[in-house]
Amino acid sequence: MSKRVAVVLAGCGVFDGSEIHEASAVLVHLSRGAATVKIFAPDVEQMHVMDHMQGIQTDEKRNVLVESARLARGNIQKLSQLNVHDFDAVIFPGGFGVAKNLCTWAVESKDCSVNSEVKATLQAFHSQSKPIGLCCISPVLAAKVFPGCEVTVGIEKDKKYPNTTDTAEAIAQLGCKHVSKSVGESHVDVKNKLVTTCAFMCDAPLHDIFDGIGTMVQNVLKLA
Amino acid sequence: MSKRVAVVLAGCGVFDGSEIHEASAVLVHLSRGAATVKIFAPDVEQMHVMDHMQGIQTDEKRNVLVESARLARGNIQKLSQLNVHDFDAVIFPGGFGVAKNLCTWAVESKDCSVNSEVKATLQAFHSQSKPIGLCCISPVLAAKVFPGCEVTVGIEKDKKYPNTTDTAEAIAQLGCKHVSKSVGESHVDVKNKLVTTCAFMCDAPLHDIFDGIGTMVQNVLKLA
Repeated sequence: MSKRVAVVLAGCGVFDGSEIHEASAVLVHLSRGAATVKIFAPDVEQMHVMDHMQGIQTDEKRNVLVESARLARGNIQKLSQLNVHDFDAVIFPGGFGVAKNLCTWAVESKDCSVNSEVKATLQAFHSQSKPIGLCCISPVLAAKVFPGCEVTVGIEKDKKYPNTTDTAEAIAQLGCKHVSKSVGESHVDVKNKLVTTCAFMCDAPLHDIFDGIGTMVQNVLKLA
Repeated sequence: MSKRVAVVLAGCGVFDGSEIHEASAVLVHLSRGAATVKIFAPDVEQMHVMDHMQGIQTDEKRNVLVESARLARGNIQKLSQLNVHDFDAVIFPGGFGVAKNLCTWAVESKDCSVNSEVKATLQAFHSQSKPIGLCCISPVLAAKVFPGCEVTVGIEKDKKYPNTTDTAEAIAQLGCKHVSKSVGESHVDVKNKLVTTCAFMCDAPLHDIFDGIGTMVQNVLKLA
């Protein structure tokens, strides 16, 4: 039977929204796994709009739901409309948008607040023992909401994973366990049904990131 | 030896820019094929900015190069800086942005004009017998610039390919040959070194579109 999977986006573009290639990879692998997919995003203003060419913040205002619709080809709903009973699993691709629009990790690290709809979504799937897939920086959402959980954001003390060590330290300070895993692997926290992979936390060729996300999606579908 | 491939984008989002999943698929397959990739886009204003959630035009102004930088993770150059001598092949993903920002097909069909830098790029690769890959609606660029060429935009008179028949007719009116090919295939015009695949011109699961783009990329790399 086809697994029903919700995908939660955070905008469209690595520096202020969902990382595009991660989101696309999640959707390709879900399609190959014959999942039935619906896409959601919170209907809130983006924390920043970044000029991705110059890497600088602009004066523009953009809405997370409206920009996420670019990745969803228009087929998207407000996160407030997500009903956990309609799904077997949920997946959060990464990108700075997760750390800016779904929570405030980008500016407050472990002391961040999590968007109330995002928090409610995570808690709903968790309380029903339905798997949650996360990649790149998204595992910090789980670390913040589920103290004691296990996640990966890459390999600590390895220069191919430039931001992993600091992020892993903050995850540990939240009372969670960081497990070092390479870009081609995903980590399964069996107890919490969390599946995580580091994706662009690693400075790797795009197809390796694509394949690593594939292992995350496949593990989510297995657990669902 | 690693093939050097230029990828030309047209914005970021199916309704006013490059189709995101097509562009990402091209980059994943080029990465797997060990190609050295550089990304380009024209530094021009988008014809439209579309609200992808509601499917309507907005009052905003956005720049094709700046929005394309979202897909390129900031690593992008102006199309005017593309030097054919630095590359073995060029690929144009699809999306309405091709028919709005790279040429005016969206409003003028076969009577469209092609952006001068796009036209010069196509002619430069063609005149040096370097392969050109195109998907979705992008093959109309080749049909407009290279009369007599062969391309595919899907299967004519098949309801899974809702816009193929009209597009193929316009291509024929330009003196070109349309070859019906399924979403999983690509067509190679050996004489002109054009490789085309229909991608989202077909109403197909995302992984089938991903795989079809894979055949296009692999054929481009073979010819390069």
